[in-house]
Amino acid sequence: MKSKSIGILTKPKFPEVKTTLQAVVSWLRARNIDVILDTTSAALLEEKGGLQKTQLAQKADVLLILGGDGTMLNAARLAGERGIPILGVNMGGLGFLTEVRLEHLYPSLERVFANDFVLDERLMLKTHVHRHGETVAQGIVLNDVVVSKGTLARMIELRISIHGQFVTNLRGDGLIISTPTGSTAYSLSAGGPILEPAVHSLILTPICPHTLTHRPLIVPDNVEIDVTLTSKDEGAMATLDGQVGIALTQGDTVALSVSELRTRLIRFPESTYYDVLREKLKWGDG
Amino acid sequence: MKSKSIGILTKPKFPEVKTTLQAVVSWLRARNIDVILDTTSAALLEEKGGLQKTQLAQKADVLLILGGDGTMLNAARLAGERGIPILGVNMGGLGFLTEVRLEHLYPSLERVFANDFVLDERLMLKTHVHRHGETVAQGIVLNDVVVSKGTLARMIELRISIHGQFVTNLRGDGLIISTPTGSTAYSLSAGGPILEPAVHSLILTPICPHTLTHRPLIVPDNVEIDVTLTSKDEGAMATLDGQVGIALTQGDTVALSVSELRTRLIRFPESTYYDVLREKLKWGDG
Amino acid sequence: MKSKSIGILTKPKFPEVKTTLQAVVSWLRARNIDVILDTTSAALLEEKGGLQKTQLAQKADVLLILGGDGTMLNAARLAGERGIPILGVNMGGLGFLTEVRLEHLYPSLERVFANDFVLDERLMLKTHVHRHGETVAQGIVLNDVVVSKGTLARMIELRISIHGQFVTNLRGDGLIISTPTGSTAYSLSAGGPILEPAVHSLILTPICPHTLTHRPLIVPDNVEIDVTLTSKDEGAMATLDGQVGIALTQGDTVALSVSELRTRLIRFPESTYYDVLREKLKWGDG
Amino acid sequence: MKSKSIGILTKPKFPEVKTTLQAVVSWLRARNIDVILDTTSAALLEEKGGLQKTQLAQKADVLLILGGDGTMLNAARLAGERGIPILGVNMGGLGFLTEVRLEHLYPSLERVFANDFVLDERLMLKTHVHRHGETVAQGIVLNDVVVSKGTLARMIELRISIHGQFVTNLRGDGLIISTPTGSTAYSLSAGGPILEPAVHSLILTPICPHTLTHRPLIVPDNVEIDVTLTSKDEGAMATLDGQVGIALTQGDTVALSVSELRTRLIRFPESTYYDVLREKLKWGDG
Repeated sequence: MKSKSIGILTKPKFPEVKTTLQAVVSWLRARNIDVILDTTSAALLEEKGGLQKTQLAQKADVLLILGGDGTMLNAARLAGERGIPILGVNMGGLGFLTEVRLEHLYPSLERVFANDFVLDERLMLKTHVHRHGETVAQGIVLNDVVVSKGTLARMIELRISIHGQFVTNLRGDGLIISTPTGSTAYSLSAGGPILEPAVHSLILTPICPHTLTHRPLIVPDNVEIDVTLTSKDEGAMATLDGQVGIALTQGDTVALSVSELRTRLIRFPESTYYDVLREKLKWGDG
Repeated sequence: MKSKSIGILTKPKFPEVKTTLQAVVSWLRARNIDVILDTTSAALLEEKGGLQKTQLAQKADVLLILGGDGTMLNAARLAGERGIPILGVNMGGLGFLTEVRLEHLYPSLERVFANDFVLDERLMLKTHVHRHGETVAQGIVLNDVVVSKGTLARMIELRISIHGQFVTNLRGDGLIISTPTGSTAYSLSAGGPILEPAVHSLILTPICPHTLTHRPLIVPDNVEIDVTLTSKDEGAMATLDGQVGIALTQGDTVALSVSELRTRLIRFPESTYYDVLREKLKWGDG
Repeated sequence: MKSKSIGILTKPKFPEVKTTLQAVVSWLRARNIDVILDTTSAALLEEKGGLQKTQLAQKADVLLILGGDGTMLNAARLAGERGIPILGVNMGGLGFLTEVRLEHLYPSLERVFANDFVLDERLMLKTHVHRHGETVAQGIVLNDVVVSKGTLARMIELRISIHGQFVTNLRGDGLIISTPTGSTAYSLSAGGPILEPAVHSLILTPICPHTLTHRPLIVPDNVEIDVTLTSKDEGAMATLDGQVGIALTQGDTVALSVSELRTRLIRFPESTYYDVLREKLKWGDG
Repeated sequence: MKSKSIGILTKPKFPEVKTTLQAVVSWLRARNIDVILDTTSAALLEEKGGLQKTQLAQKADVLLILGGDGTMLNAARLAGERGIPILGVNMGGLGFLTEVRLEHLYPSLERVFANDFVLDERLMLKTHVHRHGETVAQGIVLNDVVVSKGTLARMIELRISIHGQFVTNLRGDGLIISTPTGSTAYSLSAGGPILEPAVHSLILTPICPHTLTHRPLIVPDNVEIDVTLTSKDEGAMATLDGQVGIALTQGDTVALSVSELRTRLIRFPESTYYDVLREKLKWGDG
């Protein structure tokens, strides 16, 4: 990769982020790489300037993430429109999205500049919230959109349609609409299956459904899904990638479909998806 | 039963409640039974007076409920202190707590006056919320206490101890502490087992736990359970029987143990617990 | 459809099969349709002749099934090679595969001859059992291949690889490898998700795994899956569509991939996949 | 404990059993403890004699087990009648039943002789198989009785009654009837909850039930459970503690109730049940 510029996003709450950031910026500048920092990272380095996160993704050719899977989800939404590659360095262990461990940071960067990597394309989910015929909110996610009851409500009731065909009414704590990438996140905790990222489909995982025969449902990636809040609102929310919340009103419809955008993760092919699964889920132990 | 007085609680949202109430009050008064109404029921009948619900349970010898399982939970908390028997008439079908169907109302009442019934004693759970060494809230439930994350929070972290012994840290959507009676309510939706009411124990059912090896845990009825909120509060709540919410602050401990009070449900022995299970869960179909 | 010939397969254990068969054969012959019977159906009608089931599928242009989902699985394996369309009439209610109810038999046949139907193509799974470098058994299924322990064995141990990459070792009762069509059969009982048939993928559902973090895994339809029996045999079996059993020996590998064959089900588009799901799983009740 | 004699049972398949046995026998004899070996252990030491396992439990005052949880289940059945205490030393890690690790063997033995331990009483389940009014088999278990289909059968159908009251018909792979002790064994793999051993109850856990609303059911310890095989036999079995198999015939009833016998496990109170759970289930990781 003839990388003209690397944008760096950090999550300062992790230990070692500041010292790692100082070192990697020096390392990159010594190689004449143009380093673009967001305001948080610039402040950490006590440098002036720093761009807004949204601008960072407009200018950089690659994003380097020092953080966790949450930071990656944020980066994916920023990078989505231009589709620039993302290299995730996990500051706390091994993540599903940030496969590079801190101790492999510099060898990994050298491989990036030597073009010795693969791009792992992940589908993203776009969502619009419709109210009285108008779109009141929208967004794109890499993991999931969650429609859930308010904390004090006893349940939420949702009507699910696919391609305009009625599927079911669901009563319970809520519904997760997940990409294959999101299958190892919240959907898994709610009892969903694991989808290899190459399976082109979406997952609808009910959260604590009252009807015990409701099960996770896997649908093709060309469907249009409508989820309508049919119960009173009482604090109901749509949450995008666990980071952005949209308050819902009775009658609102959350419309979901696969986006034309893709997240492009930089991967080193010697570690497979299954290696990560085994390690994270402790398969083989016990 | 030489019933001196029957207190009546109604849930007006169900159809037929008003006409049923008019008829049953006439029926009872024609038999010289003292009828005590709460303010809601009195208003429905356009009668003056009517007692506060809490007073109703102080004066009546039996409670007659025209409503659903939610009305029964409310009645159980009211009746708990004096332990007066409760007869539940379900206005919407068949409930786990309200076994009498509307069409069996008068035969059932006649059996009550003929002493032709059994009292089904159900254990109740008492809970105190401790903050900085003080008790800031307390209550008694028939079904469950739920400690759950706020709608926008990504998760809640709880430390669970039993008899002062550390059990586990739990990260996820929350934790249900349920009586056997509550095992067919929210706990079941969250993946919990069904406990026959005669099993003297409590159930701890995790809600969407991040660690996939967490499972529902059944403990004896003599334990003291402490559940401490170790993550930030961000909207965390303790909810009693799905009806009363208590906002929790980081460091709060929800202390739970079996109450000395019992709920006494009037039952007619020809229908068993398993009959209700089969009908409600549609066992045998499919 | 200019149908030259209809082959009929029946499952005599269902009630009304004999009278239905008599009537439909008369109905078809009165319309100058060539009716081909298998030996079982011929015997039911007390007619001479009748073909072996395998020959039936070689000669007929359409298969008409009077039976249940099990009869359909059998028909799918027979029809697979030539890919002839199958019309399933359920003699016992509503099936996932046999959507036509008995009372709709003649209107449905008329629609078939009027070309008023759609063909619903379902992927099939082919499997080979390798032992010491040789193929000792093979087959094609519409629903699933199950690798399971013998009744007396405490568990089975399986090594799973995909595209030659090690995925995991699995200890438990066994493993179901299912098509999307099979997702509503055994895999569902073992905790698997529901896959819309249009999702091009396979499901690996563990049966009672010892490691609690094992979950159903969905993989793309272009993979080669190898499942090797690494524990002692003690009665271990591979079972094809619940109908054909192959005894396995320690070291045997069950190799699985999507077949180039398809099952073609005759469908009438006014009833959707979700309608069948709702009815079979009783969604919306309770 | 003024221990007059220690019986030793070993599972030779574990590594280090032979050297451990040699050392511990010398250690005990040096303290003038009467050591009783079973034939397997005697052979390992190349000593003459050795008792049948059943006789061992008749003569010894304490049982010392060098093996795994399977060896403990065997010992529990042997020791049951006389109720003698059992000390389990796990030769392969940490077990649910064998809490002593190999490196703590001698300190643990010293504590036994110093009476510095507690006896953890575990309830056992007795079972009789009735056929045409006769008892054709019987046994006692510490963990579970499993009624399961033959490997080639598609399913088994069972009628479950409790105290003579019909509970449900179950179709699926089978049914586990488990003690609280067995709740962390096979029942857990089949989706059952964890029961603290002090909860006096039994668990009925369905294995891959066809009806999706079947859930594990917890019943009091005073019940009589009848499980009748109503489908064809086709290889159906009742299995006691995963070790003893009884072939079942259509119409057979497996009758189960809590035995008056108890298994008495030697425990050192500084490690709690929850410590073992956390370690075995890896709670707190991930």
